[in-house]
Order: sequence, then C-alpha cells, then structure tokens
Amino acid sequence: MYEVDLQPVGKRATASSEASLLDVIRRAGIELASVCGGEGHCGQCRVVVLAGEVSPPTADEASILTELEIRSGERLACCTYPKSNVKIHLPNSSLLTHSRLQIESSLRDVPVDPLIAAYAVEIERPSLAHPISDLERVAAAVPAAPHLCAEPAVLRQISNKARDYQWRISVYVRGAEVVGIAPYARPPVGMAVDLGTTKIAAFLLDLETGEELASDGALNPQIGYGEDIISRLNYARRHADGAQVLAEALCKTLDDLLGKLTRQAGVERCQVADLCMVGNTAMTHLLLQLPTGQLAVAPYVATSNLAVDVKARDLGLTTAPGAYVHIPPGIGGFIGADQVAMMLASDMDRAERVTLGIDIGTNTEIALAKPGAGFLSSLSCASGPAFEGAHVSDGMRAAAGAIEAVRLQDTTVHLKTIDHAPPIGMCGSGIIDAVAELRRWQIINARGRFDKGHARTSEGRFGPELLLAPASDSGSGRNVAITQKDVNEIQLAKGAIRAGLEVLLLVTETSPDDVQEVIIAGAFGSFLDVESALDAGLLPYYPNAVYRQVGNAAAVGAKWALVSRAERERARRIASATRYVELTTYPKFSRLFALGMLFPADDALRNKK
Amino acid sequence: MYEVDLQPVGKRATASSEASLLDVIRRAGIELASVCGGEGHCGQCRVVVLAGEVSPPTADEASILTELEIRSGERLACCTYPKSNVKIHLPNSSLLTHSRLQIESSLRDVPVDPLIAAYAVEIERPSLAHPISDLERVAAAVPAAPHLCAEPAVLRQISNKARDYQWRISVYVRGAEVVGIAPYARPPVGMAVDLGTTKIAAFLLDLETGEELASDGALNPQIGYGEDIISRLNYARRHADGAQVLAEALCKTLDDLLGKLTRQAGVERCQVADLCMVGNTAMTHLLLQLPTGQLAVAPYVATSNLAVDVKARDLGLTTAPGAYVHIPPGIGGFIGADQVAMMLASDMDRAERVTLGIDIGTNTEIALAKPGAGFLSSLSCASGPAFEGAHVSDGMRAAAGAIEAVRLQDTTVHLKTIDHAPPIGMCGSGIIDAVAELRRWQIINARGRFDKGHARTSEGRFGPELLLAPASDSGSGRNVAITQKDVNEIQLAKGAIRAGLEVLLLVTETSPDDVQEVIIAGAFGSFLDVESALDAGLLPYYPNAVYRQVGNAAAVGAKWALVSRAERERARRIASATRYVELTTYPKFSRLFALGMLFPADDALRNKK
Repeated sequence: MYEVDLQPVGKRATASSEASLLDVIRRAGIELASVCGGEGHCGQCRVVVLAGEVSPPTADEASILTELEIRSGERLACCTYPKSNVKIHLPNSSLLTHSRLQIESSLRDVPVDPLIAAYAVEIERPSLAHPISDLERVAAAVPAAPHLCAEPAVLRQISNKARDYQWRISVYVRGAEVVGIAPYARPPVGMAVDLGTTKIAAFLLDLETGEELASDGALNPQIGYGEDIISRLNYARRHADGAQVLAEALCKTLDDLLGKLTRQAGVERCQVADLCMVGNTAMTHLLLQLPTGQLAVAPYVATSNLAVDVKARDLGLTTAPGAYVHIPPGIGGFIGADQVAMMLASDMDRAERVTLGIDIGTNTEIALAKPGAGFLSSLSCASGPAFEGAHVSDGMRAAAGAIEAVRLQDTTVHLKTIDHAPPIGMCGSGIIDAVAELRRWQIINARGRFDKGHARTSEGRFGPELLLAPASDSGSGRNVAITQKDVNEIQLAKGAIRAGLEVLLLVTETSPDDVQEVIIAGAFGSFLDVESALDAGLLPYYPNAVYRQVGNAAAVGAKWALVSRAERERARRIASATRYVELTTYPKFSRLFALGMLFPADDALRNKK
Repeated sequence: MYEVDLQPVGKRATASSEASLLDVIRRAGIELASVCGGEGHCGQCRVVVLAGEVSPPTADEASILTELEIRSGERLACCTYPKSNVKIHLPNSSLLTHSRLQIESSLRDVPVDPLIAAYAVEIERPSLAHPISDLERVAAAVPAAPHLCAEPAVLRQISNKARDYQWRISVYVRGAEVVGIAPYARPPVGMAVDLGTTKIAAFLLDLETGEELASDGALNPQIGYGEDIISRLNYARRHADGAQVLAEALCKTLDDLLGKLTRQAGVERCQVADLCMVGNTAMTHLLLQLPTGQLAVAPYVATSNLAVDVKARDLGLTTAPGAYVHIPPGIGGFIGADQVAMMLASDMDRAERVTLGIDIGTNTEIALAKPGAGFLSSLSCASGPAFEGAHVSDGMRAAAGAIEAVRLQDTTVHLKTIDHAPPIGMCGSGIIDAVAELRRWQIINARGRFDKGHARTSEGRFGPELLLAPASDSGSGRNVAITQKDVNEIQLAKGAIRAGLEVLLLVTETSPDDVQEVIIAGAFGSFLDVESALDAGLLPYYPNAVYRQVGNAAAVGAKWALVSRAERERARRIASATRYVELTTYPKFSRLFALGMLFPADDALRNKK
C-alpha cells in the first residue's frame, strides 16, 4: 500500500498499485473531471506527478498529452498507477468543484487538550453532623482539582443547582477555578469565533472530543457604523458613547450566534465553558471597548497586543457564569490575533521552507516564515472591501446568484453562480475571474485600460465594460457587467497587496525565487481561482512556489486555541517571535504600490485564454 | 535594662532598676491613678507582680497593703523597682482611663508583605520605528514582573493615563496582573473592613509601609431591613430583589466609607489597589449576593466558606480598576472570616497554652486553642443585640451621653458617660457595669429578680428598677434606669454565651481549670470592664486564666491579611485547621443555656461592692 499526497488540497490517501489515481482521488472524496468514465479518451482528468514513481505513460496518454507535458510530469489520472508513495498536483482545471470542506481539511488535526476539565460527580448531602459549605463539598467530590475556588457569579449558582439536580452535577473547572455547573455528565462546549471586519464565523466545539457540533456566520453589525475599520474608529472617537455602541452591537450579535449554535447542537448555555475569539487589532479593541484614539493615528499603537482573558459575562454573553473569552495575542499595528491564528493553523512557526502566508480581506495580512535568523515577520495592508463586493458596480457578497466563476469562450460567457441561481452580481472570486479573463483576452491592457476597439467591449453606464449577463438572463432584470471603474478598484486593492508582498520580501532580503510555498488563507482566498489571481496580478508568480489554499485558517487557529492549551501557548510564542513590519513608512512604498497596480505583460499571458 | 510586660494591655516597656514601676508605666503611655504624685501615700497605684523579681516592700506599702495582699503580689507601683524582667498586672481599679489605642496595640505588628507590587516607571514613547502596544511598553519598564497581563477594565485606562501623565506612571501589579495605573511614585493603598452585623469599621493602609492612613466607621445600612441576621436572611428570601437590595445598600455604604478615608488621607481612588473584608458568613454572603436560603435553615450550610476574591468594581466600589476584594475563609455555619481574622490577629494558631478567644456581639463567636490533638475549634451563639443597646429600656449605641461605666457608693451613683455629656442611656459596657453593681449590692438575686424591699429599688414604668440618673440630671429630660426587663435581656444574652463556652469546653474535654488565657475581642469587649463581666456572670471565672482585652482583633486580622501574603495564607490554614462545633444540636444545650442565665451566688460576691 502506498501513500498518495494530493496537492493543493492537502489530502492524503492510501492506494495499492492496482488502483488508478482517478479511483484513489475519487475515493478521497475529490471530484475530478472525467466524461469518458476513466477510459483514457476525454483527457479531462489531468494531474501532475510531483514526486514518486508511477506506471509509464500509456498509448492513450501519448495521443492526448504533448511530449513536453509528459516530461513535466503531466498525466491522465485514469491511466496512471502508483509504484511508490507519490505526491500529485490536482490543477483547478481538472477539479469539478472546489469543495470548501476539502480545503479546510487541508490543515492537520490538533490533539484535544482543553483548559476546562469536566467532572461528573455526586456530592455529599449536607448534614448537621457535617455542615461544611456547598463549595467545599463540591471540592471534596473533585479530588483531582485541589484548592478549588469560585467567583461569586459561579457561587450564586452552586447552591441552587446542586439542590435542583439532587446533588448529581457536572463541574467545569479551569485550573483551580470552578467556571460552571451543569446537569450530570453533560460535556463542556466552547465557541471559537473569527471576528472579521465584514463577516463573523462562529463554531461550537465539544471541549472533550474537539468535535465541531455546529457552525454559523453573521455579518459584523458594526458595518452600520462604518464599512472599513477607519470609519469605525472615527465613529468611536466622535461619539461620546461610540465605543460602547459598537461593542454592544457586536456582543449582541455574538450572543445571538451562540444562541443559534447551542440550539443547533442541542446543548444548554450553561455548558458553554470556554470561548476563543480572533480578529485584527481594531476588531478586538472595539470588542473589548479598549481605547482606539491612539490606534487611529501614527504610530498606530494598540493598547495591548498581548493575550487577553475576559469573563464572557462581561461581554454580555450568556454562558457558564465563570467562562472566559480568550483572545490570543496580536503582533503589532493592526495585525492581531487573527493573523496569529492563521500562522498557528498553517504551522508557519514550524515551516522548513520559505513560506508566505496571505490572508486576503478588507485588510490583508501577510506573514513570512524564513527558516534562519528573523524567522517570522508580518505586515498588514489596507486592501479595501472590493473582495467583499463593495465599491464594485455589480459587486455583491457571496450569496445565491453571485457569480463566483467566469470563463469566456469564443463568443459566449460561461458563468458559475452560487446555488446555480440566475446571476445578480459578482462576489470576490467572480470579480477576480472576470478581471483575469479581461486580461487574458486582452480586453484590458497591462495598465488596466479597456480596449474600446475590442469586439467584446461595450459601452455601459460607467464607460467601457464587459457584459457578463444581459438583463434578460439575469436574476435582477438588469445587465450584469464588469466596468472600467471595477477594474480600477481591483487595481487599488492589488496595488496594496503586491506592495505589501514586495516590502516584506525586501526587508527580509528574500528573493521571489526563494519563496517555496504560498499559503492563501481566508474565506475569500479559499474560493479564489489561484490561476486567475495570478493572471489578474493579484498575487505574483513565484516560480519555485507551491500555492496552497487553506480556507479560513484564522478560524481553525481559533478552534485550536479553544481546545488545546498547548496551541494557546504556541500562539503566544508565535506572536512574540514575529517581527512587525510597518508598511506605510517604507520609503519605496508609493512606487511599489503603483507598480503593483499593473497587470501581467502580454507575453506572460500567451495562450492563457 | 529590664523588660516590663504590662498586662492585660499587653504593652512591653524597658526599665532600669532606678525607675519605679509607676514611672515605667506612665512612660509606656498608660495613665495610672495616683493623687499623691508617687509619694507612697494615696495607695491608688496598686499593681500585681505576676512574675520576676522586684525591690522589697517599703514601710509605706506595709502601712497601706494587708499582709495577704503583699503575699499575693500586690504592690504600690510608686514604691516598687524592677530587679529582673517582670510581668505586671494593672487592675482596672488602678487605671485612670481605658485607652482604646493601648488595647488595640496589644497585638503584635506584622511584617508588610503585600500582594501588590508598585513600580514607578518611565515608559518608552511609541514610535513608527517601534510601534509595540502600550501594555508591552509598560511591561518592558517593569522587568521584575514578567508576563504582565491586564483585564479590559484596566487596559481601558492604560493608554489614556500613560499619555495624560506623559509616560511617567506608577504601575500596580498583583502577580502578573496589572490592577491599576496611578500618577508617578504614588504608593498603593488598601482598605481593610470589619463588616459587623451592626457596625462597619474601615481602615485605609499604605500597602508599602503598612501605616494606617485613616479610619472610620458606619452603621451597617442593612439594619433597616432587619436588626439581626435572621431577619435579613428572611428579607432576602421573601423579596424577589431582596438579596440585591441588601447588597447594594451595603456596597453603597462601603464606597462612601472609602470616599471618606481617601479624602482624609489625601490619596486618589485610583491608588486603592487591594481590599480585604471580614464578616460572619451571613454578612459575607449578603455582601456577595450568594444564596442564603440554605444558610437560614438546618443544617445551616454556607454556599462557600472558602476564601473569595472578587473584583472591587463588581461590588460597585470605585478603586483601581483591577483591584480585588479578598474575603478570607470562614469556618462553618455562621462562623466566618471575622472569627478567622480574630484568631489570626490573636495568634491563636500559635498558642502554647489553652486559650479561649471570645468575640462578643450580636452573634458571639468563641474559639478554643488547645495545644495537642484537635488544636483549634470554634462555635457561634446568638447573643442578640442587647450589647448594642437594643431591647434595653434605656439602651443606646456607644455615642455621646451613653453611660459606659456605673459605680454605686453608699447613697450615690457614679456614672461615666461618653464625651462627659449628660447621661441619655446606657451602652453595652454601661449595661454590664450596672448589672454587675445590681448583683454586687444584691439588689437582684442570683436568678436576676429585683429585691423589691431593697432601699435602692424603685418602681418604674416596667416594674422594679434602679434609677441611674433622674430626669433633672439627664440629657434627655427623662429618668435613666436599669429595669427588671433589662436584666432579663442580659440574662438571655449571657445564657447563650455561657452555654457556648460550656459546650466548647465539654466537646474538647477541657476543664475550666485548664483555661490559661481568655482573649476578649471585639469593639464591645474592648470597653468592657472585665471584673463587671465576671460579676454579671457574662463571662465565667476561670481560676487559672489571664483575661486579655485585645480590641477589634477581627479588624486587625483584616489589616494583616490586607498587607501580608503570609498572613493571608495563615488565615487559610487557620480556617482549614479549625473544627466547627454546632452549638444548638448539643444534647445538653437547653440545660446549659438555663444555667448560664443565673448570676454568681452571693458568697462569690462577698466584699465586691
């Protein structure tokens, strides 16, 4: 039996030499394109053998693949059998769907080692002969946790719950502190939250098994007070109760999410014994009502980038009364716990090769792991909300009817929409796909200008545009198009990201040729077509790099820090080991930003359409 | 130079053989009666030499003292010179005043070792070159406290205060936790509180030197919801918001007291970095809004008798934002942190002889230290509020015009009132003095009945009584008298206390002859005339015991636990080492209670008047 390592999804499978790679890949739950049913005729199931030995090319393959393709390891999966452990690259073009779960599972599992210990105990009843206090009788039933203590908020529940449950209870203990009391033998659960500027993702986990019991998302309600971070910081500054209003709106949403998750999972609120939340520095400061005046102006200093533990009840969350919310440390400036969580989940602190980690969003955080001196460094750039569909003419959030993929063919436009609904607008991955196609077909030039003479260019509301769906086909009854203005918005966003990448490589004296792995994290990044991102110039082409999409790694890191003391400690070490790089003061920043706005040159795109 | 140990005040002085004991005693700040000016003529400065060698009796002494008195160690202080280290008893009859401070200082001092470390630091200013967070720059300035953390409530102040104070601040740290920020080089202070059922005593201490900066007292505002504990527990049970109302009233008073103390001492609220409060179990439960339903009915079980640390802000106190209130552990039933604090301040856990500790109040707590097996034990008895002046016809609290001492002489009554004001009523020590005199003059018999045929008995509103001050001399324009009903009230109180003492000796198999020291603690106990307490039968006469009045030892214990980690830990050990004795279930309790209501027999009082 051989091991088959499937990239970039990161899945591993075992296979005998009797099973074709197509079978192995399908058994691993990945849908590979194949219309001939594995007969070697359609040529759709192309893969690249990166390492290991496989069976020699068949006559079928020789007739479909070029000699050069075969020399560079390209094969048809249905005709290829492993002869040793192998590593296989699955090109996007061969994948039928981008499975979101496959991408998330590309991160390893982490051993469960929670801060909360749960004890199902029967407590001695009080008597005149032995009238010791309720807490002491609880402590006597939990000899494994000596010197128990409890806050008044928890003590207020102990006496009544112990009697209501007839002295059979579950005791949740953190260190020596009782944080909650639940009915007998109910497991403690925890909530991990990724607090995005735009979106909030929340997960309910069983703290004893690490199993995910429920997940849900919500829009960050602070959007109502400012779409980007700076507007929100201004709101907090300009209104006497601004910080309180923003925090309360967020906490209300978090408590609602917790309510949904516990209902979904069929657990009680009193079982929620631990929480972990990650977000950028501004988000966590706004959550905790920390001062942000000094964060909004140079030198952009946080009140605290260290880890914070705060009682969930102090944030208005209904949980076990002593439950804490843990917020892992941040790095500096706006680079907060979410970036640390991403680096944690991607094991960047253990990287053995030069690795870039990119979390694309309204703010894009970039980390570099460079084995050797100055191992970890990180910076943040303001890429704006275009990838959330904002400031784009027909932009929208990823919801039913959003165009998530675009391919032009001769005279037609192929669209893939979420839920196969009629197209209404474009979400982030659709916008990048559209821009990449504009450039591949040279409808726009390297400076991003529409070629008004191009056959596919039409004139729309905002000047030249490419019509994606006419009003008659659309879900809104209006034309859906990508316009010159949209291209310019994307150029501003990619200018920031490319400048950030350049600066990080420059200050760490790293050449683009040195980069061996590019980890693309974040919700947007996981639906992104990497080839389109390269052709749209959103990401640079590093010739020696593997590009790996890891999904919402920040959320995974939050889950790890929720269920594992060791991972929580490792997050602390990552934060303190990571060098913060301030982007905007870098002398060449403006020039790099302008260069980053350019698209790939024509010759780099030959034969791409 | 010899050491002179002055009992029962517990002061020590040094003396040469050239100084008379009268000089030594006066230099120690104790006013001894002497009208002849130390000439050996008036016979007022009588003392008893308990141990050590002194000069032989003079001719003057031989003419004033009887042979028996001289044989039992009685001497005139003005005629006596030490010849070795000596121990001297100062009878109350020789003392001009009971100095409250002298009594308090009879407890030893404790080395200061506070939980709060204060650092006066200048913090690095933030810059784009080094834009780390404010908390991290504070941490860098305090290398002695690594891994600093802070709660949001504290973080909310750090950024603004650091800038307001131009980066020169005092940082108060407890363990690794920043609890407050103050102007540069301001010392942290702490408040110690004795939460009595009736009275609250509060003290502000410098946490670096242990110095007492201010003290003040207030009535417990919960009196409005019930004079005794059971009425308050009933109030909490019968009203939906009862527990909250009681707690908020108390916390408001505590915050007002803190305001007064800080103003008196000229310190800011942000300097208040630690607090320690002691009280009986019901008081601390009502303070913390812990459930009391189970405490009010058998088997009288506390929610927690373990130590509790709670944020001062959660009790509505304005302090350094991260300051804790520490409540030391209790023992069992209603015996709470105040009794532990009393035992701590009296060093009962280190007693080398059989020692009783008695804290007389609305509830009277009694502890026994018996070197050997079952070292410490404790019980509580409901002695009622008579000593606070309640339920006594002309009773009043200790305030101006309260009679605090009573002596009958032939046909006159000598009264001592607080502030020398015209008499209005009797406070606790006055009531005990009056009852003792009633018994010494056999105006009441051993069962407490007035002798209606006695020349001093008159007929008043409530039957027979002794007139102390006629309306014409009183401050209220009404007669002030002690009545048959008052005597009965005192009998109920002393019945409970005597029964408690008996039971504690019985269950520990201790004979009254074994008792070597009786520590009388509490505000009431420190103003009590011990001889009157014995003659009124409030306390038994233990033939081999020294009686020591130590003032408000519970408050002293609270101060120790405030300023010393070691003492806080010792309180924990005392609580866990002390056996709780439940009084009311003891089979002979009712009989002992009835016996305890009796007064000393006639022959025990011969020549006492």
